[in-house]
Amino acid sequence: MDQFFKLKRPDEVFQIIHGFSPLGEERIPLETALDRILSQDFIAPEDLPEFFRSTMDGYAVKAKDTFGASESLPALLEVIGEVPMGQSRDISMGNGQTVKISTGGKLPEAADGVVMVEYCSLLDSQTLEVSRAVSPLENVIQPGDDFRKGDVVLAKGQRLRPQDLGVMAGLGVSEVTVFRKPTVAILSTGDEIVTIDRRPRSGEVRDINRYTLGALCERLGAVPLYLGLCPDQFEPMKRMVERGVAEADTVWVSGGSSVGTRDLTLEVFETLPHFEMLVHGISISPGKPTIIGKTGALPVVGLPGHVASALVVAEVFLTALISRLAGRSDVAERFGGKVEARLVQNLESAPGREDYIRVKLIKKKGGLVAAPVFGKSGLISTLVEADGLIRVDMNTEGLYEGEMVKVMLFDQINGGNG
Amino acid sequence: MDQFFKLKRPDEVFQIIHGFSPLGEERIPLETALDRILSQDFIAPEDLPEFFRSTMDGYAVKAKDTFGASESLPALLEVIGEVPMGQSRDISMGNGQTVKISTGGKLPEAADGVVMVEYCSLLDSQTLEVSRAVSPLENVIQPGDDFRKGDVVLAKGQRLRPQDLGVMAGLGVSEVTVFRKPTVAILSTGDEIVTIDRRPRSGEVRDINRYTLGALCERLGAVPLYLGLCPDQFEPMKRMVERGVAEADTVWVSGGSSVGTRDLTLEVFETLPHFEMLVHGISISPGKPTIIGKTGALPVVGLPGHVASALVVAEVFLTALISRLAGRSDVAERFGGKVEARLVQNLESAPGREDYIRVKLIKKKGGLVAAPVFGKSGLISTLVEADGLIRVDMNTEGLYEGEMVKVMLFDQINGGNG
Repeated sequence: MDQFFKLKRPDEVFQIIHGFSPLGEERIPLETALDRILSQDFIAPEDLPEFFRSTMDGYAVKAKDTFGASESLPALLEVIGEVPMGQSRDISMGNGQTVKISTGGKLPEAADGVVMVEYCSLLDSQTLEVSRAVSPLENVIQPGDDFRKGDVVLAKGQRLRPQDLGVMAGLGVSEVTVFRKPTVAILSTGDEIVTIDRRPRSGEVRDINRYTLGALCERLGAVPLYLGLCPDQFEPMKRMVERGVAEADTVWVSGGSSVGTRDLTLEVFETLPHFEMLVHGISISPGKPTIIGKTGALPVVGLPGHVASALVVAEVFLTALISRLAGRSDVAERFGGKVEARLVQNLESAPGREDYIRVKLIKKKGGLVAAPVFGKSGLISTLVEADGLIRVDMNTEGLYEGEMVKVMLFDQINGGNG
Repeated sequence: MDQFFKLKRPDEVFQIIHGFSPLGEERIPLETALDRILSQDFIAPEDLPEFFRSTMDGYAVKAKDTFGASESLPALLEVIGEVPMGQSRDISMGNGQTVKISTGGKLPEAADGVVMVEYCSLLDSQTLEVSRAVSPLENVIQPGDDFRKGDVVLAKGQRLRPQDLGVMAGLGVSEVTVFRKPTVAILSTGDEIVTIDRRPRSGEVRDINRYTLGALCERLGAVPLYLGLCPDQFEPMKRMVERGVAEADTVWVSGGSSVGTRDLTLEVFETLPHFEMLVHGISISPGKPTIIGKTGALPVVGLPGHVASALVVAEVFLTALISRLAGRSDVAERFGGKVEARLVQNLESAPGREDYIRVKLIKKKGGLVAAPVFGKSGLISTLVEADGLIRVDMNTEGLYEGEMVKVMLFDQINGGNG
């Protein structure tokens, strides 16, 4: 129990995680860059677009030729041709003349506006009646309207969305510089754990954490490296952790629900070069017996063995760790991943400890309702039944029935801790 | 303008999309099943767990031996050994006897409870003092506490999360039956479009939709199949669309911002076997000139050529289409992907039309604020600057400054339309 006083508060843990540095960078093809993190500001290498374009189907005009035009007093213009799509040749257009143009077409140099086709009618093949005036630049995109050469289009640390790839494509960029994806070495320990292809004897259980933690890594854009199973013995665990340190960017050891294994994990970590203990227990439930340390700059983590506890800790803290290693600048800036719901019952909580309660969401008239999912520690069914977590602050004694709560959704983990 | 009366309302479009059928199923390894959609209910093949386990470090006891124990009047028990982790051998335990046990350890058959180590002290190697009573089954997981053999653990149509893979692993399942991923054939049309590796001449623009639409597909768990660029000509477009129909599960033609190309796309669709037109224009902005039809059971889509319009339509409607083809049962049931924010200015909207307004989110004291991002149609910068979309209902004339609005986040597209 003397360990109690060493427990770190969740905000201290986030602070510690923020102390790690992003990994190095690499160049990748644009078409594989979805959800990757920019390692440098992206600067527009040229104007977008590079020429005056029509935003409508209609007729390119000199705007002043249409001034005063109305349905009762239309302007009459001479049609001298049509802008062919994708052609660079300029069409010379005099006063009182017009050229048919499609959406996206390049404006003749002499033109400065486009009349929508709805306000035009052809009297004959060469005579156009225009029933509405346009102002200069109406229905026209100017060069650089999207971006000017030299503009910062996307900031370092941004996760690339479909539209971000689009703008890079529009600017002719076929390779992007991004942070490397973190590789996460995953190791499950415990004499009672067996691989899922084996029929467990009584007393044994299958390795669940490999799948839950590995899938979580994938979701967060990291690459799991499975080290395998390890018995509760110092030498084999040391060898496997060392392999993880050599081949991955962070090492996560799960298991050690029992005090003995936990101590063993710690003992192994302490043999690593330049090891420094950063977190030895967190004041949360579930997940208290979590260890975070570093060997050099590389984070090593000891997670509880209970599958539900391990996954809650990973969702809450290790998403932030991966975001940090992956170079995301917006960890605290993300807006989503949470929904508001009305709590269906009182929830008690011990002060001085942050509780993460699994809840199921139910759609009712008047909005979402959050129903806590209870169950013994060590079960996974509670997580399967739940849609997300609610956080009960350390400074409260609980939450009341009917209170609005924020639910962190399992389905929308994106590395935010905000 | 006579086409106006054929426009479908968004709810009608969702209804039509719901009329498509999910694709076939396939068997895949568990470790590749993250985010895949179950095509059959998953039934527990055995109990989980299969034996009585301790949830704590402590001592396994017959609960009745501890009844009445307290700090002032502890119970004394004889320690006869320790439960080795992962061993199936039973330890026989008589009245007044106890066995040391770790979290996850198998309870001796004669025991029915576990005293936490905190309430125990060893007087000597064989004598334990217990200062608190436990009830039968306290700190014990029973066989089937997670799931009983025959339980429906996960329902058909569910998208598999990390914890869902975990429970399957715990039940010894190494292969899963899921719906096939939809393959989406993507084709960009327009005489002015060039591939991004080419330096466009004046009048030409690079192919952006290939990247935005392809990345959106990837995010939604679909597989993009790039058919390439197509000039505004009937025969080449027909050949490419036919290839898409042959090789993919749905075909998306983008381009045709101009009336001519739109008509061409339609003309090509109409030559497909058993073609049926379902949607010819939607009463939304942007995105009105959207076409949805089917050839046999296969959906074909004509998207606006403006990149922003095409992406908005895809985010709003084609996410639902992919969810439907992918067999997700929870399209309307998802809770997330939206946040509430306060609108910073009035927004006018034409009645009879649903508007999707791009907004940027800003964190302020008192919560999030949504600022509309305006810009000419045809720009992509508006989408890059925006964090999400707000929907202005067709039956309102707009939204007021200070009103709370729901923002659909670009970062959290998950196929929901709710």
